[in-house]
Amino acid sequence: MTRVRLESPPGVPQTVATAEFDAPRLLVFRAFLEPDLLSQWLGPRRMTMTIDEFDPRDGGRYRYAHHDAQGNHYTFHGVFHGDPTLDSVVQTFEYEGAPGHVSLDTMILEERGGRTSVRITSIYQSVEDRDAMLAAGMETGIREGMERLEKLLERLERQSDHGASRAA
Amino acid sequence: MTRVRLESPPGVPQTVATAEFDAPRLLVFRAFLEPDLLSQWLGPRRMTMTIDEFDPRDGGRYRYAHHDAQGNHYTFHGVFHGDPTLDSVVQTFEYEGAPGHVSLDTMILEERGGRTSVRITSIYQSVEDRDAMLAAGMETGIREGMERLEKLLERLERQSDHGASRAA
Repeated sequence: MTRVRLESPPGVPQTVATAEFDAPRLLVFRAFLEPDLLSQWLGPRRMTMTIDEFDPRDGGRYRYAHHDAQGNHYTFHGVFHGDPTLDSVVQTFEYEGAPGHVSLDTMILEERGGRTSVRITSIYQSVEDRDAMLAAGMETGIREGMERLEKLLERLERQSDHGASRAA
Repeated sequence: MTRVRLESPPGVPQTVATAEFDAPRLLVFRAFLEPDLLSQWLGPRRMTMTIDEFDPRDGGRYRYAHHDAQGNHYTFHGVFHGDPTLDSVVQTFEYEGAPGHVSLDTMILEERGGRTSVRITSIYQSVEDRDAMLAAGMETGIREGMERLEKLLERLERQSDHGASRAA
C-alpha cells in the first residue's frame, strides 16, 4: 500500500501531500485530469463524487461535489493556472461552504523506474485557513483518496496488460 | 501622500501590501480592473506598461508587460479566481522570467468616510519565492505604483467634479 504523507508545518500557511504509485506518470496524470477517472477516487471512501465542470487548461474552470449517505454535499471549485503538463498542474481551490477562502495547489509528478511520486503543495491565505481545512478532515480525505487512486491505477494497469496480451 | 506598507513576515511565504486613498471604492476598483486605467499606474515609475490580455471574470486571463528605457521587458500573467467584486478580487500571478513560480493575490477594498483602503495579500509557493520577489524590487514597484495610482485617482476625481459642475 502506498504511504501517504501530509505535512503541515506549524505557523506556515501550507500543506504538502506526498504519495508514490507503482504506475507510469502518464497514467497517474490521466487519473487526475480525466473527469471519468478522477470521480472514481478523489475524496474520502464513504463519499461519492459528481463533476459539474472540468476544463483542464489555462483559465479553465472546474467544479465538483462529494456526497455522503446522509444527503450532505460538499462542493468545491477553482480554475487552472497555465495548461496542465506532465510536469506540473497548478489550480486554485475553494470550498463553497467557506466562500472567500481560496488556496493554490501545485502538483508535481516524477517518474523513476516505472514508479511515480505525487507531491501536492497547497498554500493558503492564512494559517487559520489551513488549520480549518485540517480540522475539516483533509488528511483523511487525502489518505483515503490516494488509497482509492492506487487501486484504480492497479485496475487500469491490468486492463492495459490485458489489452496488450490480447493484441499480442 | 498615501502611506504604502509592505509587510513580509519572516519564515512565512506571504506579503501584505496596504495603502489608503482619498477616493470612493468604486473608483479604486475601476483603476484596478479597467485596462485603460491600470496601464497608467501599475509598476515602477520608470516603466511603461502594455496589456496584451485582460479579462476580469472567473477563469479570465490577463497578461501584461512593463518596459524600461533600456529595452528590457518584464512580462506577467495569471487568471482570475471567481468574478471580481467590489469586496474582493482573487487572481494568480506568475513572472514569465521565473516560470513555474506562481503566487495567489487577494485584494480587499474597504471604504470608510469616502476614503478607500486597499489590502493585497499575496501567498507564494515557498519563502524562497517570496524573497526572490522582494529581492527583484517588489517593494519599490508597489510603492511607486500606489503613488501613481493616487495621482490618477485625483485626476479622475477632478474630471468627475468638472463633469458634475458642467452638468449643474
